[in-house]
Amino acid sequence: MSTQANTRIVLAARPQGRPKPGDFRIETVDVVQPGEGELLLQMLYLSLDPYMRGRMNATKSYAKPVEIDAVMEGGTVARVVRSRHPEFAEGDIVLSHSGWQSFALSDGVGLRKLDPAAAPVTTALGVLGMPGFTAYAGLLTIGQPKPGETVVVAAASGAVGSAVGQIARIKGARAVGIAGGAQKCAFVRDELGFDAVVDHRADDFAEQLQAACPDGIDIYFENVGGPVWDAVFPLLNDFARVPVCGLIAQYNVIADSGIDRLPTLMQQVLRRSLTIRGFIQREFVDQRPAFYRDMADWIASGQVRYREDIVDGIENAPQAFLGLLEGKNFGKLIVRVAGIP
Amino acid sequence: MSTQANTRIVLAARPQGRPKPGDFRIETVDVVQPGEGELLLQMLYLSLDPYMRGRMNATKSYAKPVEIDAVMEGGTVARVVRSRHPEFAEGDIVLSHSGWQSFALSDGVGLRKLDPAAAPVTTALGVLGMPGFTAYAGLLTIGQPKPGETVVVAAASGAVGSAVGQIARIKGARAVGIAGGAQKCAFVRDELGFDAVVDHRADDFAEQLQAACPDGIDIYFENVGGPVWDAVFPLLNDFARVPVCGLIAQYNVIADSGIDRLPTLMQQVLRRSLTIRGFIQREFVDQRPAFYRDMADWIASGQVRYREDIVDGIENAPQAFLGLLEGKNFGKLIVRVAGIP
Repeated sequence: MSTQANTRIVLAARPQGRPKPGDFRIETVDVVQPGEGELLLQMLYLSLDPYMRGRMNATKSYAKPVEIDAVMEGGTVARVVRSRHPEFAEGDIVLSHSGWQSFALSDGVGLRKLDPAAAPVTTALGVLGMPGFTAYAGLLTIGQPKPGETVVVAAASGAVGSAVGQIARIKGARAVGIAGGAQKCAFVRDELGFDAVVDHRADDFAEQLQAACPDGIDIYFENVGGPVWDAVFPLLNDFARVPVCGLIAQYNVIADSGIDRLPTLMQQVLRRSLTIRGFIQREFVDQRPAFYRDMADWIASGQVRYREDIVDGIENAPQAFLGLLEGKNFGKLIVRVAGIP
Repeated sequence: MSTQANTRIVLAARPQGRPKPGDFRIETVDVVQPGEGELLLQMLYLSLDPYMRGRMNATKSYAKPVEIDAVMEGGTVARVVRSRHPEFAEGDIVLSHSGWQSFALSDGVGLRKLDPAAAPVTTALGVLGMPGFTAYAGLLTIGQPKPGETVVVAAASGAVGSAVGQIARIKGARAVGIAGGAQKCAFVRDELGFDAVVDHRADDFAEQLQAACPDGIDIYFENVGGPVWDAVFPLLNDFARVPVCGLIAQYNVIADSGIDRLPTLMQQVLRRSLTIRGFIQREFVDQRPAFYRDMADWIASGQVRYREDIVDGIENAPQAFLGLLEGKNFGKLIVRVAGIP
């Protein structure tokens, strides 16, 4: 072990608008051995998620920005390769938040042991992890879907969107997905079982969305922002709820000018008694046990399906992440850092 | 009675932007006598409220617009002058929604008998009526003030704003009012007991508001819209709540251009986990009994005070209403249509 190298990806520069490969830097450093009470983790999988774009900015947010020259943040599935910690043994597989690197030390705080026999360990980064829980908590607590209501979600083939639509259907609501391209749309409709799907790349996207929502929209689960909003907004029904968990299409926007849409937004918030509510899943931590139980049941019964898009090699994480921001992934984007031996 | 005339004010034209006197027309028509099961009401007081501006537009809203040539809508306190209805007697004083006119027929539906001995009957249009209930339901249900939190409300000397701040203080929160001019500010601070008040006409309004909210803003009760929002928005804390019940400063806006504030709004909704929630008080009808009980207690104990601005004569309603839209009233604006004999 002592001769092993840690390959890590650090933030080289804060992006101006759209990130570019040069905003990241790959480094190779020696693996540090654990002290008493510590353990050494070897990353098996790294999760790539839209929220990471926000951490690259210096702007105030619910989480601290990644510092320049610091390792990029991220959720990981790792194997304990050396333990001097009483609660972990070599060979344990854990969920950790070790970031974009192949090895990391841990004092055990915040780790969650995974049972590879219960579910593929990658699901702890997706449908049974943070993205799945974001969908679950945001939809059920803020969205509160009722039978017969219409739920719309964008990035519907992605980690969060796919869970939102399927949970909506389990609760008796009608799920309308938005996705980019024929392949993803077919997957959302045929594999995930959404009631309808609309391609946001279509010239007549807004008209198609309206046709797919003949009774209007009761819940719009906002995880993309940008142009989709303009098509969704006029369709929101009285008392519609808009949980906001991500704005990937806006993360790279520097400034906006033109028509000021804020007064219209507020007028409609008032006239239609709309609820717009930003959230992060951490806020709903008390619902996690119910989530793990429900979601495991739904996966077992086939009511929730998921798709993973796995890229090999930590050195490919920056390029994969840039693709994620442009919707190039197809399913939950995960980097395989090392194979399970 | 049969020789009496009904003076009524109808919508003559839909305003383009700011309403003008010519958008209203005064008419005099014969009073119609009640048929079986009906009663004739003589208006004593007419409530003038900002929401009426919205009803002058043809735009879709939570309520139907007033039709051209139809009587302007409005809450009224009236006396039963002739009754052919078993549940009402001549001389009863009732709360009705009879609009801008001196007489009206009713079938009794939606009327609420008032006890003039229990409280001045005008309070049924203000602190013990729709505006007071708007403050109560919006602040407690959506705002959910906690001890030590900071609650900001504009139009703080008005019917809704004055109740919001005083209820916030009863719940242990810090109340910061916004009002226009030294006289109203003094009233809000000295008579209503707000913790701080800021004059929105001051050149350094935004700086003064920031200084008045050293711990940020946890609840902004939005009942005005317009420029105040820009000063409030940067001060909203994580998990802040924004109940939206009125946008009087925007009711006359036709179109907006310049910087598009929507992307920034949504980014901050996400980053700060904000809640923005439009509402109308009708939605919370099940809380009305609690409201009547609590508010009557608070008025009796002196914890809630109120101010009325009474204008004489139904013919003066249009001018008084135009003044309301410009903040010229000082307290709950009410038209005295007829004296209590």
